[in-house]
Amino acid sequence: MVVVGIDLGGTQIKGGLVDEEKGIIKKMSNPTEVEKGNDRIVENIVKVIKALSNDTKIDAIGIGSPGSIDRDKGIIRFSPNFPNWRDFELTRLIKEKTKLDVFVENDANAFALGEWYFGKAKGLKDFIALTLGTGIGSGVVCNNTFLTGKDGLAPELGHIVVVPNGPICGCGNRGCVEATSSAKYIAKEAQNLLDRYPDSLVLKLAGSKEKIESKHVFQAYEKNDPLATIVANFSIDALARAIGAYVHAFNPEKIIIGGGLSRAGDALFIPLREMTKKYVMSSFVGTYTIEQSSLVEDAGILGAASAALYAEEKNF
Amino acid sequence: MVVVGIDLGGTQIKGGLVDEEKGIIKKMSNPTEVEKGNDRIVENIVKVIKALSNDTKIDAIGIGSPGSIDRDKGIIRFSPNFPNWRDFELTRLIKEKTKLDVFVENDANAFALGEWYFGKAKGLKDFIALTLGTGIGSGVVCNNTFLTGKDGLAPELGHIVVVPNGPICGCGNRGCVEATSSAKYIAKEAQNLLDRYPDSLVLKLAGSKEKIESKHVFQAYEKNDPLATIVANFSIDALARAIGAYVHAFNPEKIIIGGGLSRAGDALFIPLREMTKKYVMSSFVGTYTIEQSSLVEDAGILGAASAALYAEEKNF
Repeated sequence: MVVVGIDLGGTQIKGGLVDEEKGIIKKMSNPTEVEKGNDRIVENIVKVIKALSNDTKIDAIGIGSPGSIDRDKGIIRFSPNFPNWRDFELTRLIKEKTKLDVFVENDANAFALGEWYFGKAKGLKDFIALTLGTGIGSGVVCNNTFLTGKDGLAPELGHIVVVPNGPICGCGNRGCVEATSSAKYIAKEAQNLLDRYPDSLVLKLAGSKEKIESKHVFQAYEKNDPLATIVANFSIDALARAIGAYVHAFNPEKIIIGGGLSRAGDALFIPLREMTKKYVMSSFVGTYTIEQSSLVEDAGILGAASAALYAEEKNF
Repeated sequence: MVVVGIDLGGTQIKGGLVDEEKGIIKKMSNPTEVEKGNDRIVENIVKVIKALSNDTKIDAIGIGSPGSIDRDKGIIRFSPNFPNWRDFELTRLIKEKTKLDVFVENDANAFALGEWYFGKAKGLKDFIALTLGTGIGSGVVCNNTFLTGKDGLAPELGHIVVVPNGPICGCGNRGCVEATSSAKYIAKEAQNLLDRYPDSLVLKLAGSKEKIESKHVFQAYEKNDPLATIVANFSIDALARAIGAYVHAFNPEKIIIGGGLSRAGDALFIPLREMTKKYVMSSFVGTYTIEQSSLVEDAGILGAASAALYAEEKNF
C-alpha cells in the first residue's frame, strides 16, 4: 500500500509519500499559514498531497495532529495549533478535494502506529510508545490490539499522578507525570532554581535564563552540575514511577520513547532504566526494555502514514 | 455451551455446573484436603466435576486459582494456597481423568471474565475488574480484548505505586496500592493506631485487637470514628489515585469492584467515587462508573466457568 502521511504542525505542513514496505519515498513541506484562515490551511494541505502523489496512485491519506481528535468522525475537536478549530471536519474537507480516504489521528497515537509499522515496534504485539516533549503523549498496543478505549480517549499516560500534591499540570491536577517530567517542566524548574545556583552550567549553556531548555539541563546533568542533577533526578524518578505503572498495566515488550526530550540520549536513558527497576515487581524484571525511538525527524510523517495504513487494514 | 467452573481454594473446592445463557444450574463443594497430598487434591477436584456433570454433557472445565498461572501451558507456577506446587501441571492431570478440555486462570482474571459473561460488564467492550481482598487483583478488557500482555502477566494493577516511599508491599516495593488499600493493610493499620485511639469503635466492633478486620474499620468509618476515618481516608484516597491512573490508561466504561472489601458497600463506594474525581482529567469526567460487583458468593465459580467459555470461544 502507498499512502501520504501529513504531519500537521502550527507553522509547517510536513508531508511524505510512504510505501508500506519501503518507507518514505519522497517528502516535502509547506507553510501552514494559520493566520490566513481555514480555507487556506486546507488548500495548503491539499497542495502537499497533490505534489507528493503527482505521478503515483495512492491508497489513502493519513494526518497526524496534536489535540483532541475524534478518529471515527474524522474531526479535530480542538488543537493547540489551531485555536479557531472546534469540531473541525478536516477529513471531510480533504476528502472532497482529493476523492481519497482520509484519516486523522492524534499525534501521539500516530507516533505509536509509526513505531509499529516502521520503527522499533515492528512485529511486536505488546509495546508502549511515549512522546516526551512539551507534554507527554502516549500510544499502546497490547495483545496485538491498538488500545483506544470506550471513547477513543485512551491512553493518556501523561496524566497519571506520580507525585501526589506535586507540581500543577496543564490538565488541572497536581503531580501528573506530564507536570514532573515533560520538557516544559524541566526547563521551567531549572529557571526557578537559578537564583540558588547562579553559577550553574545550565545558564552558561543556554546563554540566558529565558533561553533555558530541557536539553541544556541534560547536557549539564551529564557533567554533574548540581542544579541540573536536582531537576533531572526528580523528573527521571517520577517518569520511572510512571513507566513502572505502565509495565504492570500492560506487560509490554518495549517502551519506546520519542519526542524532543528523548534526544538527550544516554543522559536520560541510562538513569531512567536504572530508576525504573525500583518500581517494577520482580516477576516483571527482564520482561521489557526502554528504548530511544529511531524514527527521529520522520516520526511525524511516518506516524501519520501509519494511521492511514492501520485504518485501511482495519477497514475503519 | 455448558461448562464446569471450579473455584479452587486452599480449604474448599467450590464447583458449579454453568450454562452460558442461564448461569449456575447447580453447585456443590468439597474439602480440598491439601495436607493429604497432590493425588488427593486432584481426586477431590475430579469428584466435584463428576458429581456436577453426572447427567449433563459438558463442553469444558475452567479452574480459577490464586497465584501465578501459565494459562497457555495450563500450569500453576506457584500458589499461596498450595505451597508444594511449583509448575504444577494441573490441567494435564484433570484432562487425563475427565477427557475434557481443561483451562486454568488466575482468580483475578477469572473474576474479570466472570463479570464479562455474567455480571455488570456483560456486553461491554471496555471495563476494569478489581478484587479488593487480602491483596488486590485485576483484569482488564479494552477494545473488546482481554488484556494479558507479552508474558501473560498483565494486568497487575495492585502493584502500581500510589504513595511514593509509602508502606512496604508484599512484592518488595513501597507504596503499591495493594500496600495502601487492601483489606490486610487496612486491618493492620487500624491495629497499629489503636494505642493512640484506645476507645475506638473499631476495637468495640472487633472484640479484640487481633480480631480487627477491614469490615470493622468501614463500619466505624460510617459512624465517623476518628481512628477509622484516618485509616479509611488514606486507603480510599490511594485507591482513588490508582483508579485515576487506570481510567487514563484504559478509558473504561466501568470499574467493577469485588472481593471482601467491596462488601463495605456505600461506606467504600461513596467516598471512592468522590475522591476519584480529583485524579481524573476533565475530558474523562462522566466517561466511567465505579460499581460494586453483584456476583458475590458465586464470583469464583462464575469466573472459573467464564475462563473455560472464553478459552473455548478463542480456541486456545
